[in-house]
Amino acid sequence: MSAIPQDFQQTTDRLSAEVIQPFPKSRKVYQAGSRPDLRVPMREISQDDTMTSGQPEQNPPIYVYDTSGPYTDPQAKIDLMAGLPALRQAWIEERGDTEQLDGPTSQYGVARQNDPALAALRFEHIRPPRRALAGKNVSQLHYARQGIITPEMEFVAIRENNRLQEMRDDPRYAALLRQHAGQPMGARIPDLITPEFVREEIAAGRAILPANINHPELEPMIIGRNFRVKINTNIGNSAVTSSITEEVEKLVWSCRWGGDTLMDLSTGKNIHETREWILRNSPVPIGTVPLYQALEKVNGKAEDLSWEVFRDTLIEQAEQGVDYFTIHAGLRLAHVPLSAKRLTGIVSRGGSIMAKWCLSHHKESFLYTHFEEICEIMKAYDVAFSLGDGLRPGCLADANDEAQFAELKTLGELTQIAWKHDCQVMIEGPGHVPMQMIQENMEQELKDCNEAPFYTLGPLVTDISPGYDHFSSGIGAAQIGWYGTAMLCYVTPKEHLGLPNKEDVREGIITYKVAAHAADLAKGFPGAQLQDNAMSKARFEFRWHDQFALALDPQRAIDFHDQTLPKEAHKVAHFCSMCGPQFCSMKISQEVREFAEKGMNEMSIKFVESGADIYKPV
Amino acid sequence: MSAIPQDFQQTTDRLSAEVIQPFPKSRKVYQAGSRPDLRVPMREISQDDTMTSGQPEQNPPIYVYDTSGPYTDPQAKIDLMAGLPALRQAWIEERGDTEQLDGPTSQYGVARQNDPALAALRFEHIRPPRRALAGKNVSQLHYARQGIITPEMEFVAIRENNRLQEMRDDPRYAALLRQHAGQPMGARIPDLITPEFVREEIAAGRAILPANINHPELEPMIIGRNFRVKINTNIGNSAVTSSITEEVEKLVWSCRWGGDTLMDLSTGKNIHETREWILRNSPVPIGTVPLYQALEKVNGKAEDLSWEVFRDTLIEQAEQGVDYFTIHAGLRLAHVPLSAKRLTGIVSRGGSIMAKWCLSHHKESFLYTHFEEICEIMKAYDVAFSLGDGLRPGCLADANDEAQFAELKTLGELTQIAWKHDCQVMIEGPGHVPMQMIQENMEQELKDCNEAPFYTLGPLVTDISPGYDHFSSGIGAAQIGWYGTAMLCYVTPKEHLGLPNKEDVREGIITYKVAAHAADLAKGFPGAQLQDNAMSKARFEFRWHDQFALALDPQRAIDFHDQTLPKEAHKVAHFCSMCGPQFCSMKISQEVREFAEKGMNEMSIKFVESGADIYKPV
Repeated sequence: MSAIPQDFQQTTDRLSAEVIQPFPKSRKVYQAGSRPDLRVPMREISQDDTMTSGQPEQNPPIYVYDTSGPYTDPQAKIDLMAGLPALRQAWIEERGDTEQLDGPTSQYGVARQNDPALAALRFEHIRPPRRALAGKNVSQLHYARQGIITPEMEFVAIRENNRLQEMRDDPRYAALLRQHAGQPMGARIPDLITPEFVREEIAAGRAILPANINHPELEPMIIGRNFRVKINTNIGNSAVTSSITEEVEKLVWSCRWGGDTLMDLSTGKNIHETREWILRNSPVPIGTVPLYQALEKVNGKAEDLSWEVFRDTLIEQAEQGVDYFTIHAGLRLAHVPLSAKRLTGIVSRGGSIMAKWCLSHHKESFLYTHFEEICEIMKAYDVAFSLGDGLRPGCLADANDEAQFAELKTLGELTQIAWKHDCQVMIEGPGHVPMQMIQENMEQELKDCNEAPFYTLGPLVTDISPGYDHFSSGIGAAQIGWYGTAMLCYVTPKEHLGLPNKEDVREGIITYKVAAHAADLAKGFPGAQLQDNAMSKARFEFRWHDQFALALDPQRAIDFHDQTLPKEAHKVAHFCSMCGPQFCSMKISQEVREFAEKGMNEMSIKFVESGADIYKPV
Repeated sequence: MSAIPQDFQQTTDRLSAEVIQPFPKSRKVYQAGSRPDLRVPMREISQDDTMTSGQPEQNPPIYVYDTSGPYTDPQAKIDLMAGLPALRQAWIEERGDTEQLDGPTSQYGVARQNDPALAALRFEHIRPPRRALAGKNVSQLHYARQGIITPEMEFVAIRENNRLQEMRDDPRYAALLRQHAGQPMGARIPDLITPEFVREEIAAGRAILPANINHPELEPMIIGRNFRVKINTNIGNSAVTSSITEEVEKLVWSCRWGGDTLMDLSTGKNIHETREWILRNSPVPIGTVPLYQALEKVNGKAEDLSWEVFRDTLIEQAEQGVDYFTIHAGLRLAHVPLSAKRLTGIVSRGGSIMAKWCLSHHKESFLYTHFEEICEIMKAYDVAFSLGDGLRPGCLADANDEAQFAELKTLGELTQIAWKHDCQVMIEGPGHVPMQMIQENMEQELKDCNEAPFYTLGPLVTDISPGYDHFSSGIGAAQIGWYGTAMLCYVTPKEHLGLPNKEDVREGIITYKVAAHAADLAKGFPGAQLQDNAMSKARFEFRWHDQFALALDPQRAIDFHDQTLPKEAHKVAHFCSMCGPQFCSMKISQEVREFAEKGMNEMSIKFVESGADIYKPV
């Protein structure tokens, strides 16, 4: 008699060990903030002792920024049917600027709720939505400008620091905290992130903290060039393939491997219900492109779109808890002809839909003409803008062209309007750009959009790598992340070819974690080199289990190692299959070090005295 | 009664369709040079017509630089037992400065030849080696400095241009040859590569053309910053795993996917015989680290190494035809203490072996003290130096340190000595370097080594990516390639974890082809964007088969596409599974274009006349 459809029961059952098991040598820890219900999750990786000839030397635990949510916490009771705990609920209610509605207020939301045929698909525990009280603005930007440090802001400050101050005060970390000077390329990253700094960055519009009041389950995170570079992942069913069950499974998978936010780009049927399941089980901010659903509502005919349908969709999704909306309001009718001579025209789905609408009606885009009305909706739920680049280049040839930069200028104008409403804004960027032209994109964005966070797709640095586009876009992502992009939208190996499966998602995420981390290192983000140093020390000391645990993808490291040397004994061996026992340079190098430590001074003195200078610097 | 061991017969049989089949829509073509025996191989990719409403529009064939050798030529008779045709034999003989010896002259070479126990392992058709006549120098650098343009130089000029002039003269290519201005970072790439330009670059030491006179099978290629960026792959069995059969198979595989040169890093038994098989079947230059084999000859005890053993190994390998030797002559005894405080000490195998030798004997490295004698050997066979960076950093923390740069300075001094002997030289580089410190490596190398070609391993931009190190090194490779590195040494996903298998090799190669191509584009190498433009046009026009054929890895593109849409009908479909038929932006964009072409002018006039300005630029 249960209303739960069979495939969702399977989902619950199928949240397999693979998806929820803790990482090796790791446990979930929480760092407390200023109030008991503010607990910031981190992953603590324990390390083995260094085995020297004398006493074993202790290696301290390493802390890692953790996006995996309660799923990797063995203490947490995971029940997809009930959703995650609403950890921000009290914070939102305390502010006293919202009201709980009786139910959804969008026409579509009401219709879906009352459709008995959907009972079997529907998430059972839907809370009635909250909305700002009349005249109130509930955006984090609004609070920041009032001088208010919200619990969300404190949360992200602790999260970004990742116990840095505690480690600085602990002599065991002294050597591990060694780090090269960064080249911040204009970023101004403080030595330690304070809650006040978070507030200032949000108030200045240089960072956003996407956190819809109807998504209280999320663990707050921040997107801005003076913070860690973040990555976004995309999931979504389409008319051709994929099911709701798979999408929820992919959400948890995405969080596990390090996705900081997730966009639900579903275009198939029942996307309203899919979205509810995703939001209720998501510890990360969820973004959408409401235009996709609006188009479904008019049966896929772009010319039948209207402001009314779109507006209802915004409210529908805002009341479900979507944290940011991609809105292609910068593509104006007058920009469309600029794309006609391009090699690949308009490659953004949202962009092409709007272009078609504009041409069909001979009218300016309704997203542009109704932009202030959109702002009113955004600030009533705190949905952040992700201003879409409908004219992003779809190939190298079209990079940095007039169409792209004309739209970017419009996005800058819209940013000012959104900020006037205290709405949070980030700006979407390309696309396909050869390396020598990437920096211009970043500089133009910072200039035109007054340092609103940049959120880029890649960019791909070549067009000829289908099957490897996660990588060719990752090259561009690492560079633009270094130059100042705040969040990198991942690309999977299936880009341009098909819909990614679970393994593609994992591959895309880790590729982008590498790019984002490389950017953090290049900018000199404080503490960014800690994990690298710990890994290198473990590598030098042949602590294989520690190497696996400290890897971005421990499971793959283990699997690859075991393909050649599967035995447990090999995991303490002082060699790997790459070189074999006789030739390991690390091993010889350790001998050199011991030799040097024992004998170098002595020998050096002896030889210098004898007139030989072979131990002195050349 | 055959002397051929069974596993080699299996190799012959096992040169499977997968390894030798031509690429889709491709055929091997040869461009003739100034003499009938100078035929430069290229891959020609045919394209389908563009289907428009009116007449189908023809798309011209695209030419791709082809490293695959005769293996992808259905006309070529492949017989691993006989080896490849000796296409340079006549060129070498004509120069009249070499003699054919009676047999190998190294002690080890003689011993192996006369050992009946090895008959079953031995390549049957060993030619007696050639050597320079007394007093002669047979290096390409020597010829270049004499003002001689060798057939090898003409070969590479044609190869680098890849029919560029012919395409410029053909109006069908006009749009496809559109290319963004590069940022050459100090490179001076001409509009067209002439044989004389090749000669000048070699004469100046800015490029090398590795081509041992005992490796006449190779198809000449060039390594220099004013040419296409090249990639090297490594194969090699080790004591732990792998067999000769697998190594030969990997050679053909490496050439197939785009490896420009290949290093045989074998450290197991029978490496002399393995090398012979590889050389006789290799269309690409082969490099080795002779120190590895020398160490085997003294049973793996570094302290037992001697100049005599090393010297005999150089001759042994030079007479087999190895095209370049990694020689760690820059690591001097005085540098060793500089490495003692490092986080990961000495990670180069060659470097650690020599460091151990130096410390054990309290002596300067015999590679350094005998460097001029090494030059004498190199120029008698035209083996190019690849001056090894024994002190390359093995982790981010050790990047750009005193040890690394002290050795680099010594490599610069050795370069001058080698050039005095008209020996060809390239310089090996790091390793592990965070992004903001990569450029310094390139600048320092150009300065210290007078623009001798740089040949770098990655660099890896983070230490925490085991399992994905092909990618984290690829990020660094793309950047340093842009900055001026001439050849990128690939890294596979198994780096730091184990020995790569065939799929790892393919993955590593394509990753590095992406990085090298991205660098060519960034530098503005003439014609580099052609393949990208053709791909993008094919993509926009839904010519799926052309997209696959134009991809760096056509097979993976096909496999990935077919995972979601396996039917042949989908390969002409105007959508992919990513978005489904309703939402394809490319499709909508084409509609926009048609709409714009048909109606834009008309509408624009109408609206401008009516006083509306919505079709005019904003």
